[in-house]
Amino acid sequence: MNNTNKYETLDPENWDKLKTLAHQMIEDSFNYIQTIEERPVWQQYPAEVRNHFSSKAPLEPNSIENAYKEFVDKILPYPMGNIHPRFWAWYMGNGTVQGALAEFLASIMNSNLGGGNHVAVLVEEQVINWMKEIIGLPSDSSGLLVSGASMANLVGLTVARNTKAGFNIREEGLQNAPHKLIVYSSSEVHSSNQKAIELLGLGKNSFRLIPVNDDYSININTLSQAIKEDRKEGYKPICVIGNAGTINTGAIDDLNAIADLCEQENLWLHVDGAIGAIAMLSDKVKPLLSGIERADSVASDLHKWMHIPFEAGCILVKNNEDHRNTFSLTPEYLTHETRGLPGGHLWFSDYGIQLSRQFRALKVWMSVKEHGLKRFGRMIDRNIEQANYFADLVKKDSEMELVAPVGLDIVCFRFNPGGLNDEALNKLNKEILMQLHERGIAVPSYTTLNGRYCLRIAIANHRSKFEDFDLLAREVVRIGREVH
Amino acid sequence: MNNTNKYETLDPENWDKLKTLAHQMIEDSFNYIQTIEERPVWQQYPAEVRNHFSSKAPLEPNSIENAYKEFVDKILPYPMGNIHPRFWAWYMGNGTVQGALAEFLASIMNSNLGGGNHVAVLVEEQVINWMKEIIGLPSDSSGLLVSGASMANLVGLTVARNTKAGFNIREEGLQNAPHKLIVYSSSEVHSSNQKAIELLGLGKNSFRLIPVNDDYSININTLSQAIKEDRKEGYKPICVIGNAGTINTGAIDDLNAIADLCEQENLWLHVDGAIGAIAMLSDKVKPLLSGIERADSVASDLHKWMHIPFEAGCILVKNNEDHRNTFSLTPEYLTHETRGLPGGHLWFSDYGIQLSRQFRALKVWMSVKEHGLKRFGRMIDRNIEQANYFADLVKKDSEMELVAPVGLDIVCFRFNPGGLNDEALNKLNKEILMQLHERGIAVPSYTTLNGRYCLRIAIANHRSKFEDFDLLAREVVRIGREVH
Repeated sequence: MNNTNKYETLDPENWDKLKTLAHQMIEDSFNYIQTIEERPVWQQYPAEVRNHFSSKAPLEPNSIENAYKEFVDKILPYPMGNIHPRFWAWYMGNGTVQGALAEFLASIMNSNLGGGNHVAVLVEEQVINWMKEIIGLPSDSSGLLVSGASMANLVGLTVARNTKAGFNIREEGLQNAPHKLIVYSSSEVHSSNQKAIELLGLGKNSFRLIPVNDDYSININTLSQAIKEDRKEGYKPICVIGNAGTINTGAIDDLNAIADLCEQENLWLHVDGAIGAIAMLSDKVKPLLSGIERADSVASDLHKWMHIPFEAGCILVKNNEDHRNTFSLTPEYLTHETRGLPGGHLWFSDYGIQLSRQFRALKVWMSVKEHGLKRFGRMIDRNIEQANYFADLVKKDSEMELVAPVGLDIVCFRFNPGGLNDEALNKLNKEILMQLHERGIAVPSYTTLNGRYCLRIAIANHRSKFEDFDLLAREVVRIGREVH
Repeated sequence: MNNTNKYETLDPENWDKLKTLAHQMIEDSFNYIQTIEERPVWQQYPAEVRNHFSSKAPLEPNSIENAYKEFVDKILPYPMGNIHPRFWAWYMGNGTVQGALAEFLASIMNSNLGGGNHVAVLVEEQVINWMKEIIGLPSDSSGLLVSGASMANLVGLTVARNTKAGFNIREEGLQNAPHKLIVYSSSEVHSSNQKAIELLGLGKNSFRLIPVNDDYSININTLSQAIKEDRKEGYKPICVIGNAGTINTGAIDDLNAIADLCEQENLWLHVDGAIGAIAMLSDKVKPLLSGIERADSVASDLHKWMHIPFEAGCILVKNNEDHRNTFSLTPEYLTHETRGLPGGHLWFSDYGIQLSRQFRALKVWMSVKEHGLKRFGRMIDRNIEQANYFADLVKKDSEMELVAPVGLDIVCFRFNPGGLNDEALNKLNKEILMQLHERGIAVPSYTTLNGRYCLRIAIANHRSKFEDFDLLAREVVRIGREVH
């Protein structure tokens, strides 16, 4: 007890002063989101700001008021931009103020969802049950909220690997495997799946990327042929990854056809539904996803089209036992009991990689309680309508063209005034994209399809208005002409 | 545009009404934490509460005020308990109100730290640089904030596997590996490392658990011998995991001896510093961790002894290129640019599993700005003093005994009134633990060391006072006598 103060803590010295600041944070944050549309979608932070973040860690205390002032001056003005109604890059949601408040409440409780007997477990369990209802998986399926679809795909593919390998992978690993395990998906599959396959020690060479049809969905005949050829080679096919909304063009594979094939060939069907699975809430999209309920595992993202603040993903696994057998590991210090805190009927650490886990279920739970599922469905429908509305604007304009069919809420297009070859068009369209960003007008992203660079909008945005797409069409042509 | 309202959003219909609720949440949350000590550390939720969370997902909207009321009635009273000054189970931090506020601000911005050119990247980069300063790794090391040490260990071990394998693991996988890869640690290593090794396809059989000395640190001679024997068998040793604070007893391996051996044998040194790495901030502990700066990768947890709300872990890797080569994967739709939002000098998705990543750096950044590193060091020192203070109480009491040496802030002890065999003592001590929990007095956890069940307190708690340990000693003996 020599050089420490017996009663020093990390709690505030003056609670009332901190509370005053907290109320100010609420005021500022509400104002920030309420006025978001008046500001540029994105802006480059100045060099001065970059330099600001190069200082060493402070040794002595400062006031949190000063730290907050730094936040307001140097951080808050330069967000990624996905909270803005004209942000349509990559694939993200907006989040909501309500979700941020729920995240605050979860952090106040600071419960650890790795295990133990406390109420947050019931909340996560309920949210997972709701996800089963939405996707159409049986009520005795298992599930886990995770950081996002990258992790959901990894968890799903780990269960697939361990369940279908035909030997004890947890004990033996893949070293000295009796046969080479093979996984299949379309060439449009998201890179997170390749990352998972590399991590799992399967190797990229064991991941067959099957060509797609004109609508960017997997070619089932080629898939079936590839499986046969691999068997002929003495390999062991274990899993097909079906895509419910590809990242490039929003394409949905024929999930029933894949499910038929998987049944026939005794393969695991994992569905990467990062983009599309939650669109089961849309009456229009639901029929296109038919077959998803036949999957052995489904990955979905709730921070995309459900607009939960980052991070919120979900993995569902049809066979609870397969799931648990893949991840459960219980040393002495984690023994589950039947009483006290170490009781509890469900330890989520038995179902995934993390032991300490935040209470991420609360923001999902409160959002669903507030909005109800139908409103989420309507938001999804409107985004799809907006994609088609914008595609019509493109089609009607002689200086623009679609580069791929509209898939769900994703439109790939380019400015094409005529008389330019693909190389020149690629350069021109990249310049248009940069200027849209740099002028803070709108934030599409980009991809390259068959060698053609295109602007790409993915409209997972509950704040976008139809007028925002009129503006985008106008500005693309205006900047296109300027640059050309 | 038929059945959707053109302007419906997930934003509140009435911002002012939501703001009033948000201010109420601040008041309630402050009151909740300020009065935490007056409530039981833990309490069992009633059956009525369990039933409450079995309802199906609502289809129609409800008010967020109602959802919040449900939260206050059914959720808030039943936290895990780690926010309380007498919670010492497993290994967790308390969190802080300031951290929860920072989490709110991060969710308001809702920036995605997977990639792109925006200020949150600078904040995470700065926090990682601070971690390098603290641990003593070179400034050109790479790093990543992750969900916690389970993930940090997985990332570090993935880089170790891919770098030291001697063949292209990302392409080839471990199927047909030319030699069996072997990883080493002490028998006290945390289970998350075994989970990582299983996930990576190495298999538990390739994980050598080396016996420990009396102080629960790894026996270096046995380790050295095991490596030699594996080489003789034709296997390829690739990595040793050093433990900086074991979960059972807080033991610290001789990291310099391991580092010497790793240099000699050309092995990767990964340090699992979930518990102890951050204790580099304590002048007393720092010398015990000597050698940590020689590691190739170090995993640490900031939601433990730094009391950042869940989740916050960190992985540092000495060789940036090894780290990047393990995880970077850049398809067309994620091409990094030099201008606009897709610019940015650092894409964290190149360094880990996640693509979408929340702005978890902000809560760390604000905490360090407010408290300064020295205060964290003092909090750590005091917890260690408290562990020794409590151990003295145990030693002085004829009815209690230590079951292991005090390691850092961890004390393993049991009630032992004399005249009982181990089996009876195990049963008796388990009952004491359950009653401590069920009566809401204190929340230690438990482990089994050499067949002896013991109560275990891990004091990562900035709210614990010395008096809390007097109370624990008194209550253990009181309940022990009652039960006996």
